[in-house]
Amino acid sequence: MKIQKLVGDRFKEMPADCEIDSHGLMIRGGYMKHVANGIYSSYTPLRRITRKIEQIIREEMDAIDGQEVQFPVVLPASLWEESGRYTSVGNELLRFKDRNNSPFVLGMTHEEASVHLVREYGQSYAKYPFMVYQIQTKFRDEARPRGGLIRVREFTMKDAYSFHTSWEDLEEYYSKCFKAYERIFKRVGIPEVISVASDSGMMGGNLSHEFMLLTPVGEDSIALCSNCDYRANTEAAESIVENERSEISEELKLVHTPDIHTIEELCEFLDIPREKSCKAVVYQKESENEYVILFIRGDLDVSETKVKKYLGGDIRPAAITEDCGIIAGFIGPYNLKGNHTVLFDKSLKGTNNMCCGANISDHHYAGLDIERDCGDVEYHDFAKIRDGGICPECGKHSIKISRGIEVGNIFQLGTKYTEAMNMQYLDKEGKSQYPIMGCYGIGVGRLAASVCEAHHDDYGPIWPISIAPWQVHLCCVRSDNQEVKKLADELYEELLRKNIEVIYDDRNVSTGVMFSDADLLGVPVRVVASPRNMKENCFEIATRDKRITVKVPVDEAVGAITDLIDKLKAELR
Amino acid sequence: MKIQKLVGDRFKEMPADCEIDSHGLMIRGGYMKHVANGIYSSYTPLRRITRKIEQIIREEMDAIDGQEVQFPVVLPASLWEESGRYTSVGNELLRFKDRNNSPFVLGMTHEEASVHLVREYGQSYAKYPFMVYQIQTKFRDEARPRGGLIRVREFTMKDAYSFHTSWEDLEEYYSKCFKAYERIFKRVGIPEVISVASDSGMMGGNLSHEFMLLTPVGEDSIALCSNCDYRANTEAAESIVENERSEISEELKLVHTPDIHTIEELCEFLDIPREKSCKAVVYQKESENEYVILFIRGDLDVSETKVKKYLGGDIRPAAITEDCGIIAGFIGPYNLKGNHTVLFDKSLKGTNNMCCGANISDHHYAGLDIERDCGDVEYHDFAKIRDGGICPECGKHSIKISRGIEVGNIFQLGTKYTEAMNMQYLDKEGKSQYPIMGCYGIGVGRLAASVCEAHHDDYGPIWPISIAPWQVHLCCVRSDNQEVKKLADELYEELLRKNIEVIYDDRNVSTGVMFSDADLLGVPVRVVASPRNMKENCFEIATRDKRITVKVPVDEAVGAITDLIDKLKAELR
Repeated sequence: MKIQKLVGDRFKEMPADCEIDSHGLMIRGGYMKHVANGIYSSYTPLRRITRKIEQIIREEMDAIDGQEVQFPVVLPASLWEESGRYTSVGNELLRFKDRNNSPFVLGMTHEEASVHLVREYGQSYAKYPFMVYQIQTKFRDEARPRGGLIRVREFTMKDAYSFHTSWEDLEEYYSKCFKAYERIFKRVGIPEVISVASDSGMMGGNLSHEFMLLTPVGEDSIALCSNCDYRANTEAAESIVENERSEISEELKLVHTPDIHTIEELCEFLDIPREKSCKAVVYQKESENEYVILFIRGDLDVSETKVKKYLGGDIRPAAITEDCGIIAGFIGPYNLKGNHTVLFDKSLKGTNNMCCGANISDHHYAGLDIERDCGDVEYHDFAKIRDGGICPECGKHSIKISRGIEVGNIFQLGTKYTEAMNMQYLDKEGKSQYPIMGCYGIGVGRLAASVCEAHHDDYGPIWPISIAPWQVHLCCVRSDNQEVKKLADELYEELLRKNIEVIYDDRNVSTGVMFSDADLLGVPVRVVASPRNMKENCFEIATRDKRITVKVPVDEAVGAITDLIDKLKAELR
Repeated sequence: MKIQKLVGDRFKEMPADCEIDSHGLMIRGGYMKHVANGIYSSYTPLRRITRKIEQIIREEMDAIDGQEVQFPVVLPASLWEESGRYTSVGNELLRFKDRNNSPFVLGMTHEEASVHLVREYGQSYAKYPFMVYQIQTKFRDEARPRGGLIRVREFTMKDAYSFHTSWEDLEEYYSKCFKAYERIFKRVGIPEVISVASDSGMMGGNLSHEFMLLTPVGEDSIALCSNCDYRANTEAAESIVENERSEISEELKLVHTPDIHTIEELCEFLDIPREKSCKAVVYQKESENEYVILFIRGDLDVSETKVKKYLGGDIRPAAITEDCGIIAGFIGPYNLKGNHTVLFDKSLKGTNNMCCGANISDHHYAGLDIERDCGDVEYHDFAKIRDGGICPECGKHSIKISRGIEVGNIFQLGTKYTEAMNMQYLDKEGKSQYPIMGCYGIGVGRLAASVCEAHHDDYGPIWPISIAPWQVHLCCVRSDNQEVKKLADELYEELLRKNIEVIYDDRNVSTGVMFSDADLLGVPVRVVASPRNMKENCFEIATRDKRITVKVPVDEAVGAITDLIDKLKAELR
């Protein structure tokens, strides 16, 4: 098509609200337009990209025997009540009533809908295994959408659900899907995506992996071992700490500490290292408002994911009221009053000579010996792994923390949903069993933005040919020159006849405008017709990433362009 | 793929809640599953059909220079407030609040979103004309979903919006789109779809057409002239009546009519024909609750569409309260008290010697002369055209009323939305102007159901090859026979290598089950391998519609199948 007919504006200035490059470039390049917080409309270039991504995903899902289906966007609350998630999931699940006052939700994921679809079909072991998937709009009412398409409220996602009669069968399929994901990321141009073990969060279930594109602008933290293969989401990675215990336990001693409210202030005041302090972090359970007080070594941070997983429900930072009996700023494990859930991180196990809050206003304790003073409590892993921390696999102090964008995830769900929703099959022996599920997601728009994040320069995206909105960007410089125009027009027609996707710029604009527009559209092959090139009877052919720039005689141009496209395609196979 | 892996159940019994064939067959054939009132999940066969329909629509929209974009499903209320539809549209617009208590709606149509997308782009006349379209999920909170995919709440729709600088330009594009629609209906296998002039209802604007598949189960009424080309939705067709006036006007006479509440009872009681009665129909305005009393000749029905259009707002049947001053059952135009909107249908113009309500309990009038007794009132066309009525085009009594399913519609919107949302461009003279819009919709799922409605027998759908879930249904009868199985397996592999879409039934089931499943899947080409056919060294090849049944030697089978597919495809071009 001709660029002058392309709906959407391109411009130079990075909009003030764009924090990351892909967001800025996709706004500047006329890819999308902000409609509401975390909600965008797509212009044609982005729609062409997402359609190509969708087709690649579809091919790879079909190749592992996936069956494309479609679930509704609007789901009756009753389905989510069956699984228990209607109440257990927080505000990100958008709930509303229809005209008859019946409760509904907007689908943010479709485990319930998939079980509903196949519940009657899957009543005999002979039907298994099978996998259904869809590519469909979803809505997740994020509190803080950010980064353009990286974290939105409305998005298109491929979600797949597989059903099995044994864990072995699930694991076999899981690894097939793992490989399909690797092929997808390679084909869309980001083979550098890594997989990391992750916590499956609200999905329930067991083993799960996230596929991460490492980039400083990512919103996930990943622990990578520089010594071995270990990698995991920091929220899920086991935190290993060496707890020190002095030979002599001091006595517990009340210290007057007016105006000291934080563990940092306390350690400074007492002149002891942070490792010798026991800090309290207070949450409230989302459901019952009950307080959860967690004690952890002062130099460590809490992984809320681990706490949620341990408690089996959502939590939020506590609002400490005057009448709850908790003395904010002075909370400690010794003589703690009240009927709260109290948790201990394993970093405290066996420690002595620690300082901590005294549960008395303006007072702390020194000389805490956790076992002597708190008795026989349970310790669990609630801490976040740290940069420089110990690798859970090889045991070396070799953990590096990197940031990444999660571009896909796969979960071994187990029987969480089939049990809750009473989906059963008869096994070979005629016994009722719950099928075992896996689920597999990829966000289409986020993947497009991630490719842009991985492949761009200051002037625009550099789209891999597999998902580029067009394959060739043909520029006719000085289209007021009849001869140049004629040459370019002929090439345009010839390329279209060869079914090559061409965006053609024959506007009478400066080369500056023409090339900056081309940079913003990021089409991988650029062909320039100009008076100078015409004098040499050639076109200039270049790749958007500047790896290749050649002059090709006019009558060899179509062949050279086709070859270049094939070469670029081959690189992504 | 193999039918034994196809997720979904097929069964014989028509479900009790299925009123029309396409609904019953698509439930019985494992095409879709009910999730909530008017909300369905699609299994793979239906998803394959809708994807093919979507691709045909996409190609035809691209061919008339449409640019595919994507609008959000979840739209901020503010956009609909800009156009005024946030309040003017009734309960079918689903309104809700997000987690921050901001008002949103589920997109049921995207005029507002399209203007929002192109408002900045379209600031100069040089950018025009252009058209953007999407294929996207929509939600319309229908009061009475029915007929399976014919009237649902959640649906996939192609909606297109064109922008122009003159009415001539819109009309030119409108007729292009009209032709594209005709091509679409031909390509999906229902060339018999007719276009009818329609009322554009809540869309606003001027000329519009509906594309109708005539079928007794349709929910729209269409007036067709058997003498000329005239056809229109009965809601929009002009009603022409010949008003009779007797030479002598009788005097107005109060008649005691206890227990007579309807116009039928009154005419019987007075022994006069229905044409000599003046009936009252009472509505209330949706917005202000104000009463609207409409008088019309007793033998005619009111077109609510015409009333809404005249009033410029929604109406509903009135709830007549005791204190509103209206005497239900005895309402008449003479001496009517109260501050209501009073309308007169043109069927009353010039009439005399009519009977009507007397606005007094248990009393009617005879001898009403409308001009003498009601004075100089305005008459408008509020009546529905009738079977046997007068054709507005040729003037003959040649109107037949048929039923139809609306499979598409096109509207000349004009400047309703661009004015309301202040979208302007500078014309050649530098003057600000509002662009003129057209909009063009096709429901994908309803189209699939309509094709099924038009092409099915008692045993299942007969899908046209262009949208069939597969091209070939290969049946291996007696798959326990090794030789037959080998022959069928080889044919299956060979067809797959030729990129033919095959569903392969090699289950060890009775031919009854095998063929009734094949009938339900409605694949256009059926190939049967069986011991009997093998003896003759051939396969049986038949079309689902039974037009063609041939036996073809085994080694010519692939060629014959390919030829047959090409022949069936050619019929739809």
